[in-house]
Amino acid sequence: MVEIGKNSVGIVKTKTIRLVEAEHPLELECGKRLAPIEVAYETYGELNETGDNAVLICHALSGNAHVAGVNSPDDKNPGWWDVMVGPGKGIDTNKYFVICSNFLGGCSGTTGPSSINPSTQKPYGLDFPIITIGDMVKIQKLLLDKLGVKKLLAVIGGSIGGMQVLQWAIEYPDFVKAALPVATTTHLGAQSIAFDAVGRNAILGDANFASGQYKSEQGPDRGLAIARMIGHITYLSEQGMREKFGRQLRGADRYSYDFNSEFAVETYLDHQGQSFVERFDANSYLYITKAADYFDLEKDYGTLSKAFANVKSRFLAVSFASDWLYTPAQSEAIVNALAANGKDVSFCNIASSYGHDAFLLETETLGSFISGFLEATHRPGVRSEKEKVKSKNQDTRYKIGDFEQARRTRVDYELIESLIEPNTTVLDIGCGDGELLANLTEDKNIKGEGIELQQDPVLACVNRGLSIIQRDVERGLENYADKSLDYVILSQTVQTLKNPEKVFTELLRVGKKVIVSFPNFAHWRCRAQLFFSGTAPVTKQLPFGWHNSPNIHFLSLKDFDEFCKKLGVKVEKKIPLAKTRFSPVRFAPNLFAEQVIYVTSK
Amino acid sequence: MVEIGKNSVGIVKTKTIRLVEAEHPLELECGKRLAPIEVAYETYGELNETGDNAVLICHALSGNAHVAGVNSPDDKNPGWWDVMVGPGKGIDTNKYFVICSNFLGGCSGTTGPSSINPSTQKPYGLDFPIITIGDMVKIQKLLLDKLGVKKLLAVIGGSIGGMQVLQWAIEYPDFVKAALPVATTTHLGAQSIAFDAVGRNAILGDANFASGQYKSEQGPDRGLAIARMIGHITYLSEQGMREKFGRQLRGADRYSYDFNSEFAVETYLDHQGQSFVERFDANSYLYITKAADYFDLEKDYGTLSKAFANVKSRFLAVSFASDWLYTPAQSEAIVNALAANGKDVSFCNIASSYGHDAFLLETETLGSFISGFLEATHRPGVRSEKEKVKSKNQDTRYKIGDFEQARRTRVDYELIESLIEPNTTVLDIGCGDGELLANLTEDKNIKGEGIELQQDPVLACVNRGLSIIQRDVERGLENYADKSLDYVILSQTVQTLKNPEKVFTELLRVGKKVIVSFPNFAHWRCRAQLFFSGTAPVTKQLPFGWHNSPNIHFLSLKDFDEFCKKLGVKVEKKIPLAKTRFSPVRFAPNLFAEQVIYVTSK
Repeated sequence: MVEIGKNSVGIVKTKTIRLVEAEHPLELECGKRLAPIEVAYETYGELNETGDNAVLICHALSGNAHVAGVNSPDDKNPGWWDVMVGPGKGIDTNKYFVICSNFLGGCSGTTGPSSINPSTQKPYGLDFPIITIGDMVKIQKLLLDKLGVKKLLAVIGGSIGGMQVLQWAIEYPDFVKAALPVATTTHLGAQSIAFDAVGRNAILGDANFASGQYKSEQGPDRGLAIARMIGHITYLSEQGMREKFGRQLRGADRYSYDFNSEFAVETYLDHQGQSFVERFDANSYLYITKAADYFDLEKDYGTLSKAFANVKSRFLAVSFASDWLYTPAQSEAIVNALAANGKDVSFCNIASSYGHDAFLLETETLGSFISGFLEATHRPGVRSEKEKVKSKNQDTRYKIGDFEQARRTRVDYELIESLIEPNTTVLDIGCGDGELLANLTEDKNIKGEGIELQQDPVLACVNRGLSIIQRDVERGLENYADKSLDYVILSQTVQTLKNPEKVFTELLRVGKKVIVSFPNFAHWRCRAQLFFSGTAPVTKQLPFGWHNSPNIHFLSLKDFDEFCKKLGVKVEKKIPLAKTRFSPVRFAPNLFAEQVIYVTSK
Repeated sequence: MVEIGKNSVGIVKTKTIRLVEAEHPLELECGKRLAPIEVAYETYGELNETGDNAVLICHALSGNAHVAGVNSPDDKNPGWWDVMVGPGKGIDTNKYFVICSNFLGGCSGTTGPSSINPSTQKPYGLDFPIITIGDMVKIQKLLLDKLGVKKLLAVIGGSIGGMQVLQWAIEYPDFVKAALPVATTTHLGAQSIAFDAVGRNAILGDANFASGQYKSEQGPDRGLAIARMIGHITYLSEQGMREKFGRQLRGADRYSYDFNSEFAVETYLDHQGQSFVERFDANSYLYITKAADYFDLEKDYGTLSKAFANVKSRFLAVSFASDWLYTPAQSEAIVNALAANGKDVSFCNIASSYGHDAFLLETETLGSFISGFLEATHRPGVRSEKEKVKSKNQDTRYKIGDFEQARRTRVDYELIESLIEPNTTVLDIGCGDGELLANLTEDKNIKGEGIELQQDPVLACVNRGLSIIQRDVERGLENYADKSLDYVILSQTVQTLKNPEKVFTELLRVGKKVIVSFPNFAHWRCRAQLFFSGTAPVTKQLPFGWHNSPNIHFLSLKDFDEFCKKLGVKVEKKIPLAKTRFSPVRFAPNLFAEQVIYVTSK
């Protein structure tokens, strides 16, 4: 028996509601009509008085309305995302009113192919109309209307649930304050369609399929099991499978020399196939995978950029590094399209070996991102005050590496701040925990965005309510339109880039002004060291040995002047700095400046 | 009709031979006995008088003995590797006597589960004993004995064919001069076993399977088609599929809203499934995939290193970058184990988006590797003379990038050569086209090996008959035992490494002496430029601007001295060099040397 502790929503019951009556059928995307439609759903927590704390969870292929809690005191199987939803959890039911419904076409209480077709009084089977992600979302909207929800604080979902999240934000822009698409995509690629198609083939080709009019006691179980097995291979990563199963044999240490399942991974798949058959309907599997295959925002809207042109939600997209079903690149396509539209979007690619399943398993990391983002959206002021205190106490929740530490203490954030006009847009490259952006937002009312490579500082930025994208800037900024930002900041980073020319050119393309700061390699101490000692310089600004330095290019003010000239870049300001703050070096700056800040444009 | 041109082996016929008579059954690995055994095979070209030109090709899952040529003048389907085998092709039938046989358990003429079981006078079906890769190879050896082949010049095969290659080299070390395992592995990982298992499940669960005693006109066609579809997804890469099919619809530009195949990738898989059913036997599919699942050299020999301890062949292992079924890492495991045993092994990971199928499609690149390796093995002297002329004429067949060019012209190969004792073992890191190694081999009779990152120079080395491994040295050299080499050479490379300390330490672990050369950053011209001009130095030895230099670390003789001291490394020789060759700088070397060669040890 699962202990129903204080962090469980406790005993819950799935409710059913009729949303579409026989006399007013729903128009589906495929052109057919469907009625009646009943929907199974659960809710946890309470809708507050202002009605601004509702969170909708959209489930994935094999999920249902039962997200959290248990159905009875001795129920051994809590809801499918119980680890994430409950008092004090990632989606905190003490703060939020959480809703989840079984989607249209499902087999867990909502109308689907196993429901009774009123015109035949038999289950629909293949007479059920093809449904789409759009149809599913339309029904969810009807449910929320019935429940009196006027606006969603957030809509969250992984995998096929994430597709619904995207559809929600596009279809009902004024209804959704925040959208959290997790491990999802705007369209399936050929490989994913192929896997789905083979699974459907296995079901359709099963001798017991009976054109979809099978009896529940004699269904296309083998076909459905095959489909689920294929699915499970795609939900795990190669690495994850290798670590979990390897070539382990079920029992013996020698081969059985027959065709029984003997490798542990075979037994695992057998079990997954069998248990799925016991709880899922084969026709629903066909309809849901088809809905996923059909989902294609590019096709629907012409381009992804057009698809997201009118959304008003804040976005947090999350992918998982080892997910090869809906890949990090597919999440990045969402992020790029949103950023190209100037939308408030954050993105994190969580390190994990769990593959696609990570959205159900990496609960601690994912939970901290979700809770931070929800909180920053729900109570922006409260959180940022808290964060400010934290930041001043240096109580950052992540460890800054030696280099980061050295870099940050060197950066003269206050001076850079003084260069920025109020009410502008600012992109900070390698923004760390977002201190500069947070200060600029408060002091100068800028609209700020950050790019950062490391996961922990990205989380810190999310917690501050900043727009932050996890990305290596060396890959380029194709997500930003030309001159779409007033300022781009590249602080103490140019000397660490593999390709400074490419990056600098890209920054000048997207920013009206680019602020660059770097340590001066021609400071007299460096010169003296090389000249008199004949060694690679090690100074306070360049504190590393030749062999372990993260600085892989060395440049002086003069080098950068020539570089700008070569690239046709205008140097608007050049502020050589000595150790003391706010004291530009006026005499022989290339000799006496320890670092320098450039304001450039092109 | 395929035109039978001069580069086809022409019209060929598959022959059948009885190799095991009823009265002397073959002992199989599973413990059972099998007789009689007939084998289908083809041969092309002629065995020469010295009998040293026989090449055995081992086929993969769905292949057969019919490798090349056509069966009749109007045969539209040439053999499965016709692009690779024929006069003047990668495996040149003008030079080599080529043999291929259908493997044991197959369904194309060799005894398998569809053969008649003498004890029942019906097809074996599931009464056929489980066979292994080892059993297949044993039968191939019997065939070669019958054909009068005393020794193989080479055994070549891709995928499951590659497993047979490995088995050949291990089982018959004196019989195989060269082994070319392509896109293969020493064991399947959990993910590959999983895919095989689901495929077998689809066959075993097909209502028409009839416990394996199906009639040929009513077999488990749907199950076999499903298995083949799954297989095909794993043979292509995600990128390859995306480029080939994308989300293209078969005919229309709008969805059909039903469950017919409408995406191009679905139609492709349907076709692959259907055409496979027409030419392949479901029981054979079960037995062959099981043989692949069971193949596990680590299990058989304890470790991979022990498995290869007694091989005598030269090896060329080839993988393909996008192959996710039998991955480049799995080929590298073979290479590492061979190198750890001090065997003559070369390795190339060919850039390709074709996935596992690349071994059938990247025929030009693969063909040049195979032909070069075969030629260098068959006529080592002839080729190396040719190569020497080429090298002197600078007629290298690949383009050297600017940096490579600059690096190579700077390197004083002759001076490094003078530092190396005759009859030693030498590993050259970043060996390029192998000029230094080739010279050392000829002049000092060393046993040389190279490591190189780029594909083209790797091919040049293969053509020279050198032992060459394509690898990024920054990943480490775990494949080499401690102090297993007399010399390791790191010429003009240390300043380009991300982690010079890690690499240098690793070289000192595997080499008794490590020879390092690099440009001197403290040469007076560099010092003067930084000191007087205040710019990052650009000299003949350091010819790049600060922003586009492949040199990411800068060091002087003094820096390297201190580095060696810090690491406890003994500097045995230090040869500071000026522009003129062979003239060590005796006065103030850290000021006047443009480059330097160190001989170090630890």
